Amino acid sequence: MPQADTRIAYVNGAFLPASEASVSIFDRGYLFGDGIYEVAAVIDGKLVDSASHLARLKRSTGEINIKLHLSEEEIENLQRKLIEKNKLKEGLVYLQVTRGTADRDFTYPDDMKPNLTMFTQEKMVSNVAIKTGYAVKSVPDLRWTRRDIKSTCLLAQVLAKQIAKEAGCQEAWMVEDDGLVTEGGSSTAYIVTADDKIITRANSQKTLPGCTRLALLELATEENLAIEERPFSLEEAFAAKEAFVTSASSFVMPVVRIDEKSIGNGEPGPLAMRLRELYIDFAKRTAV
Amino acid sequence: MPQADTRIAYVNGAFLPASEASVSIFDRGYLFGDGIYEVAAVIDGKLVDSASHLARLKRSTGEINIKLHLSEEEIENLQRKLIEKNKLKEGLVYLQVTRGTADRDFTYPDDMKPNLTMFTQEKMVSNVAIKTGYAVKSVPDLRWTRRDIKSTCLLAQVLAKQIAKEAGCQEAWMVEDDGLVTEGGSSTAYIVTADDKIITRANSQKTLPGCTRLALLELATEENLAIEERPFSLEEAFAAKEAFVTSASSFVMPVVRIDEKSIGNGEPGPLAMRLRELYIDFAKRTAV
Repeated sequence: MPQADTRIAYVNGAFLPASEASVSIFDRGYLFGDGIYEVAAVIDGKLVDSASHLARLKRSTGEINIKLHLSEEEIENLQRKLIEKNKLKEGLVYLQVTRGTADRDFTYPDDMKPNLTMFTQEKMVSNVAIKTGYAVKSVPDLRWTRRDIKSTCLLAQVLAKQIAKEAGCQEAWMVEDDGLVTEGGSSTAYIVTADDKIITRANSQKTLPGCTRLALLELATEENLAIEERPFSLEEAFAAKEAFVTSASSFVMPVVRIDEKSIGNGEPGPLAMRLRELYIDFAKRTAV
Repeated sequence: MPQADTRIAYVNGAFLPASEASVSIFDRGYLFGDGIYEVAAVIDGKLVDSASHLARLKRSTGEINIKLHLSEEEIENLQRKLIEKNKLKEGLVYLQVTRGTADRDFTYPDDMKPNLTMFTQEKMVSNVAIKTGYAVKSVPDLRWTRRDIKSTCLLAQVLAKQIAKEAGCQEAWMVEDDGLVTEGGSSTAYIVTADDKIITRANSQKTLPGCTRLALLELATEENLAIEERPFSLEEAFAAKEAFVTSASSFVMPVVRIDEKSIGNGEPGPLAMRLRELYIDFAKRTAV
């Protein structure tokens, strides 16, 4: 990291300068991508939708048999301490749990002690001006079959988002051979139909169960907005009234262009903007 | 690592005790699995089939746009220095190149400096007595679509090999929905037909282009053995005369059982054993 980095990071019980935060080269996260991560937003110095992220962390680690050595409460307390030490008002807390450290072997003993590392990133999340929205690039979905596990094996997403960036876009939408969109490189994908129905995929092993998605669909239901959980094709997205993405770091973000096609009138859609307001209100109201 | 570890590892220009060998938690290999690895065998203190491994390293890094900052010759010299410092006679040299260190963002700047780490493992590779051969467990192939890239995103292989281990097996054979075997969790898969034809998949994005596979097929061709490069099903494997795997760490290893089915008479096959001898002879003859 640049020497100017003044952040405090967390590594297995110790708070230390980010520039000194390290793991063994025998950490299984480093050697095998044998780890799980979570990213939670911070607003007003508080964790957004924290219980949901910690529940997903528990589920993901359970799916690959990593035995979390700390309770959700203990992890949340560490996150809060880290926020405090960094005087973070708005941004993100990143958290990674790997299976642990051992000499390299694909298989692992049952009694491994996981490694927990965390750091913060300062970032405008709630107050960012949404004037332009995101441009999206469609790319083939190259990923494995268990995308419901939030693993650190993210090379397919790295390549997808890099292609998007080099095409002047802020997000990639991954598309399977059947022409259906799965999700964004690091976000959930939605479109809005002509009759104002919100369309997004139902949760399955094909996509990550988004925490922001979960909360937003509940908020939309409370507002009596119409939701249909089903896949949609790229062609349907091109012709949609609106499109948007959700994620812990972007909340609700309008999509104004996909590849060469403007969505709607090419400006952030009113429904997406209303959902964004609803979510940010929820986030501020429930942050801990 | 255990405190008893007396190995010397390599991290970005420095040789240091394995127990102190570490990378930043901002290393992209740790955060994203954004890295490439190679494992080369060592016999008589020399690198086996080194040019082939370094050519594959160059290809894999190129495929994901990691710009290797060292030449193959420089890397090989570092590997040899590491072998020397560890007085390694027989075993493995593990090498990992990641895209580098930067604050977390899926996308990356073009000018990143890769991180190179290496360590050795002492292991009997050429003299191991092949009395029993491997038992193999078949598992679904969960991996992404670019298996020709030797990336450190290895969670699917970790899970596959762990299932195999828990079933009392030494390797997993990954099978796609079409019933065809792709390859082993960390090896290339072969069967031998009733008329002594060696069957293995042709290289494609569906499998890793094995270095040991490449050398072995050349050796087999020189011996006028019949080879057919095509996929085979699990059912064909159950009924095969012999089966075996190849990898840098196992060379050529007979497979005597797949799931509940004994292969041939349930003992290491004569053709596999002959190929093993051929390969070990080649390895010793050409090690550098």
